[in-house]
Amino acid sequence: MSEKIYVVGIGPGSREGMTLEAQQVLHRADVIVGYPVYLALLGEEYADKKMLSTPMRREEERCRMAFEEAHKGNRVALVCSGDAGVYGMASLMYSIAGEYPAAEVEIICGVTAALSGAARLGAPLTHDFAVISLSDLLTPWELIEKRLRAAATADFAMAIYNPASHKRPEHLKRACDILLETIDGNRVCGYVENIGRQGEKSVLLRLDELRNRELNMFTTVFIGNSSTAIINGKMITKRGYHIE
Amino acid sequence: MSEKIYVVGIGPGSREGMTLEAQQVLHRADVIVGYPVYLALLGEEYADKKMLSTPMRREEERCRMAFEEAHKGNRVALVCSGDAGVYGMASLMYSIAGEYPAAEVEIICGVTAALSGAARLGAPLTHDFAVISLSDLLTPWELIEKRLRAAATADFAMAIYNPASHKRPEHLKRACDILLETIDGNRVCGYVENIGRQGEKSVLLRLDELRNRELNMFTTVFIGNSSTAIINGKMITKRGYHIE
Repeated sequence: MSEKIYVVGIGPGSREGMTLEAQQVLHRADVIVGYPVYLALLGEEYADKKMLSTPMRREEERCRMAFEEAHKGNRVALVCSGDAGVYGMASLMYSIAGEYPAAEVEIICGVTAALSGAARLGAPLTHDFAVISLSDLLTPWELIEKRLRAAATADFAMAIYNPASHKRPEHLKRACDILLETIDGNRVCGYVENIGRQGEKSVLLRLDELRNRELNMFTTVFIGNSSTAIINGKMITKRGYHIE
Repeated sequence: MSEKIYVVGIGPGSREGMTLEAQQVLHRADVIVGYPVYLALLGEEYADKKMLSTPMRREEERCRMAFEEAHKGNRVALVCSGDAGVYGMASLMYSIAGEYPAAEVEIICGVTAALSGAARLGAPLTHDFAVISLSDLLTPWELIEKRLRAAATADFAMAIYNPASHKRPEHLKRACDILLETIDGNRVCGYVENIGRQGEKSVLLRLDELRNRELNMFTTVFIGNSSTAIINGKMITKRGYHIE
């Protein structure tokens, strides 16, 4: 018998932001595995489920929990905030899956913060865009710098994840300085804190102002492209460029 | 009284791929406006709604329909496939909104093809990625080339929208040739046709094989980064890089 495990992106956090498929999978599960904050977001609706969690950075252990619960005969869902793929657990689950030959992994996608945050600010990601994390936990900082420079030079709009952490509060400032090598200081930018959760806050500002903000790790940052403008208080990237 | 219009991303196409919020908004609407294919995807569930559409490339007219229906006192939802923002109608709606002072536009985000397609192939977009459209209808081809080169040089994974059209069947081949300037021909790539719809088809292949495929406009293409591998038949991008 196949031991099926669903890796489920639950979207920004509210029940309404989840897809119907994600809800159906969670309702059918016996066990839900996840980071404690995300399990808490699921709320009363799933109070009858067995909930298992591990602390931050213990992701591999969390994945193994999921496989082991499935091996016991449970229907298992491993939850991620946003999408299951984008900086999510899908990759790690597939990498470990080989050790559990009876296991079958299925990904249930969800709305990642680039999309949910963009909807709050207006339409910053209408055209080509790059998604970049400023976390150097698993990525050399030099590569992050290279990607910021490449995205700026090629006029991509950007969604920036993990703009700050307790250990590295200065990452956003360093990233903005790199962007400012190519992009003018008055470029339209924005950020959204706690998307879809209590205390949600959206801010529009210039790139040179963004440089001096101290943001927390629950924030997603948006950098406009050269066509992005503020229209009636919204951050709007045009659908295209003027073609002669 | 404010004339509220929701711009709703309906996800890949099936009812289950929509967020709960999108469903609630559509159920409360009197009028649903959209491209005919997307209205058809909504199916029987919304058979009691007034449905209005315009043909392809008549997007501005479609937006004005939405504003005018709202002005008549109707609750209006304008639907987009995938997300409402990513190559969607949110930007155009906000740009026109100034002409309808009583109107208020709200965006309901959805799962864009980069995410839903990725979930079918495995986890190709785990790490930083770029989303690029090969349509040169509103974008100079030179800029598309520049973005492809930038993304390849900085080792972004990529999701490529509009890889082909009837008028420009050779766009994908030209794009692959640009990527092949920097990336080895054996780079792991994949594509998904008709994501979440009838006739869905997922393919994994090498970049030099992708170059010679003729794909249709209902296909999303994925280019791995240097860490992407095929593991147990899935396209998997690692969560990070080896750091000394």
